[in-house]
Amino acid sequence: MTNNQLTESGRLRHFLTIEGLKRPLLTEIMDRAEQFSSISHQQVKKVPLLRGKTIVNLFFENSTRTRTTFELAAKRLSADVMNLNISTSATSKGESLLDTLHNLESMHSDMFVVRHNQSGAAEFIAQHVAPHVSVINAGDGCHAHPTQAMLDMFTIRRHKHHFPDLRVAIVGDILHSRVARSQIQALAILGVGEIRVIGPKTLLPTDCQSLGVHVYHDMEEGLHDVDVVIMLRLQHERMQGALLPSAREYFKRYGLTEEKLRCAKPDAIVMHPGPINRGVEIASTVADGPQSVILEQVTHGIAIRMAVMSMTLGAQSEQEAQA
Amino acid sequence: MTNNQLTESGRLRHFLTIEGLKRPLLTEIMDRAEQFSSISHQQVKKVPLLRGKTIVNLFFENSTRTRTTFELAAKRLSADVMNLNISTSATSKGESLLDTLHNLESMHSDMFVVRHNQSGAAEFIAQHVAPHVSVINAGDGCHAHPTQAMLDMFTIRRHKHHFPDLRVAIVGDILHSRVARSQIQALAILGVGEIRVIGPKTLLPTDCQSLGVHVYHDMEEGLHDVDVVIMLRLQHERMQGALLPSAREYFKRYGLTEEKLRCAKPDAIVMHPGPINRGVEIASTVADGPQSVILEQVTHGIAIRMAVMSMTLGAQSEQEAQA
Amino acid sequence: MTNNQLTESGRLRHFLTIEGLKRPLLTEIMDRAEQFSSISHQQVKKVPLLRGKTIVNLFFENSTRTRTTFELAAKRLSADVMNLNISTSATSKGESLLDTLHNLESMHSDMFVVRHNQSGAAEFIAQHVAPHVSVINAGDGCHAHPTQAMLDMFTIRRHKHHFPDLRVAIVGDILHSRVARSQIQALAILGVGEIRVIGPKTLLPTDCQSLGVHVYHDMEEGLHDVDVVIMLRLQHERMQGALLPSAREYFKRYGLTEEKLRCAKPDAIVMHPGPINRGVEIASTVADGPQSVILEQVTHGIAIRMAVMSMTLGAQSEQEAQA
Repeated sequence: MTNNQLTESGRLRHFLTIEGLKRPLLTEIMDRAEQFSSISHQQVKKVPLLRGKTIVNLFFENSTRTRTTFELAAKRLSADVMNLNISTSATSKGESLLDTLHNLESMHSDMFVVRHNQSGAAEFIAQHVAPHVSVINAGDGCHAHPTQAMLDMFTIRRHKHHFPDLRVAIVGDILHSRVARSQIQALAILGVGEIRVIGPKTLLPTDCQSLGVHVYHDMEEGLHDVDVVIMLRLQHERMQGALLPSAREYFKRYGLTEEKLRCAKPDAIVMHPGPINRGVEIASTVADGPQSVILEQVTHGIAIRMAVMSMTLGAQSEQEAQA
Repeated sequence: MTNNQLTESGRLRHFLTIEGLKRPLLTEIMDRAEQFSSISHQQVKKVPLLRGKTIVNLFFENSTRTRTTFELAAKRLSADVMNLNISTSATSKGESLLDTLHNLESMHSDMFVVRHNQSGAAEFIAQHVAPHVSVINAGDGCHAHPTQAMLDMFTIRRHKHHFPDLRVAIVGDILHSRVARSQIQALAILGVGEIRVIGPKTLLPTDCQSLGVHVYHDMEEGLHDVDVVIMLRLQHERMQGALLPSAREYFKRYGLTEEKLRCAKPDAIVMHPGPINRGVEIASTVADGPQSVILEQVTHGIAIRMAVMSMTLGAQSEQEAQA
Repeated sequence: MTNNQLTESGRLRHFLTIEGLKRPLLTEIMDRAEQFSSISHQQVKKVPLLRGKTIVNLFFENSTRTRTTFELAAKRLSADVMNLNISTSATSKGESLLDTLHNLESMHSDMFVVRHNQSGAAEFIAQHVAPHVSVINAGDGCHAHPTQAMLDMFTIRRHKHHFPDLRVAIVGDILHSRVARSQIQALAILGVGEIRVIGPKTLLPTDCQSLGVHVYHDMEEGLHDVDVVIMLRLQHERMQGALLPSAREYFKRYGLTEEKLRCAKPDAIVMHPGPINRGVEIASTVADGPQSVILEQVTHGIAIRMAVMSMTLGAQSEQEAQA
């Protein structure tokens, strides 16, 4: 299933998951993002690469922040953007998801950016779209969030350069996190020296060992000598559930404070996919501190999305030219 | 009233209803759409025809699908588009409809695309707008949906060429359908050989004969030897009302199945304005079958709307030049 | 606090309040708007001045009309516009306002247009934004609405030319009106001969005298010989509150009728920021009458916002060039 995101010549046709991708492709995405990154500093932050293309944000799950980054990326590539909040539209008239999709295809849309609370939704859509449409997964259930993972890799590369030398710790609710899943896959593909996950047993997957990661339940132990600390957002529903004692207790054990951060290397960077819960998974002094690169991640998110959008639509054009 | 959509020289100033238009004008709309249709296959699906124009989608009735097609058509003509969901905006502050309109005019809007659940709303607005504004009816109550009718005529012409040779059947809730009303008018103006309507007595208008159409209550009889089958969407409110026995019973008598479709000519095409109710008015095997042109209709909808938008704003410019 | 909207060389970096600005700057805004005003009459109502810039409408308080004017102004300057309704987005995930802002900054936004129901919100945001971002106050609580005041000054200048010769009356709920506050400041800076406020004691600020305005409780007396009558919108919540007897009673005493208008000069103009409550603060015959310039105000609102947007982003570029 994971290979249907590549063309026969191995180029990116959809972007659904990190799983199964090769290192050169991830590197190509980051190199391409590096080029777009410089555009953001120009007076006119626009390139005409996708002019006349129609990109549809298909958000079945509300996320203003993620939609905004994709919309900005698309506009800076000069594409036309349509925002469809599917929960409130055609499906309320009883139309099936596939009918909605086929209608949008028939309007000559070129790309669907899909956000859905069910795992596998983006892959399902990719399997059913017309040949001229690319699908980008903007987060599906607990499954994958590949553009987030790539912007994280890009941010790490900006600061740390050589992946094999690195120790990276991911802290928090690994079990339910599509972000963590995609990050672990990307870190592994890029050959990171050691990947650690840190969290309470109730929030770690049971197959951690098979993912090739080292498991820690004690945070100070887990952070020892790492180069990169990736904090995850603690979902509010977890705090109220039976999986955790309390937000305060969680912060005491797994919240990133200046004190705990001292266990990591002195030049370790601190990352978070946002939005942050101050005082729950991270202390404000750390989030706003000198080691935090959280806002850089947001900036790089635009460049990474521009890269992925232009690569998938570029692969499309190549296919059409051959056909 | 219907003639206020034309300029003195007979060009399209507004597009409110099919009623009263002449055959050459309908043909001009389709010819113009034919030109825009080829643009959709170019790498850059844009023409600068309406650059710097402001088009306002004034939707008093929610319809993501219709709004999307108008928005796409406008963007591909390079216009700027504003989406206003009127039910949730100024009128909630107690402002009158006309005050809202005059405000939008004062912002130098060039076109209002109006969707309203009351018959006559678009004509009312057209009577009150400033001379520099064009109004397009995107569906008003049970009255008219002229762009839908024109995209249907365009789809028929693509497949069947010569209107006078054709037998066309419209099936379903004719009585409440603005789509059917506009279709019947367009088919008559284009000189279609025979127009049939098929449905239960409760869903047919009483003045059918005067419309110049042939009435059938038995579907197999009505479909006999037709070239085009146009299915209508059965509104959910009808299913629950007293006008119909049940959705299942309706499907049995008036749902389009492969079996019933065999009564039509072997090369008959099947049309539907969407969104379709699978298993209510149409079987999935027919909707997705080889005779269905339902998704083509969606595609042609963009070209038709581009045609109508550019023609009405073109007539505007002509008037201004003379003034 | 009010001076942080200017650069060191006295140019407009943010536009937060009229208070503290000098007459040449207000004149510059109006002169610049005059240039943009002519663009609206061209076939292509667009200039490439802000191409590649990203403008974010940050509306914490819903206002379709005001958002629309800013969106149109931005699009006519060729900027990309993002509309964020903050009440329904990130803050619902528990993210703080400043985190939301810093995220938007990190996406290389160039301007925030802020509407908020709390006085001081725009200034608070301006104090915390990154150096590359400009903030425009689109109305904050009872504090200020500077673009509204400037479009009003522009409208007056179009009709009356020389401010020192004028008598201007503002009628209604001065106490709660950010519009009135900004208007009074602008009129004073422009050296208007006499500024009057008219209203019941419960709706006038207690410090009126110190504002340099003349207070009238009787409308006919207050309108005597004025050149400009500015009516304020009566908020619905006031009508229901204890501050007023009833809407009908209010209209009788302070509603602008043809009869009362006869107290003003024969060529006096009538203004209103909209949306108007017909029959509450103004009679329809006056709102639609020959002395009304209410719709002109709407038109000028676009030009004024184009002026302020291009000036603040121009000052930004200048700062960057020096840095």
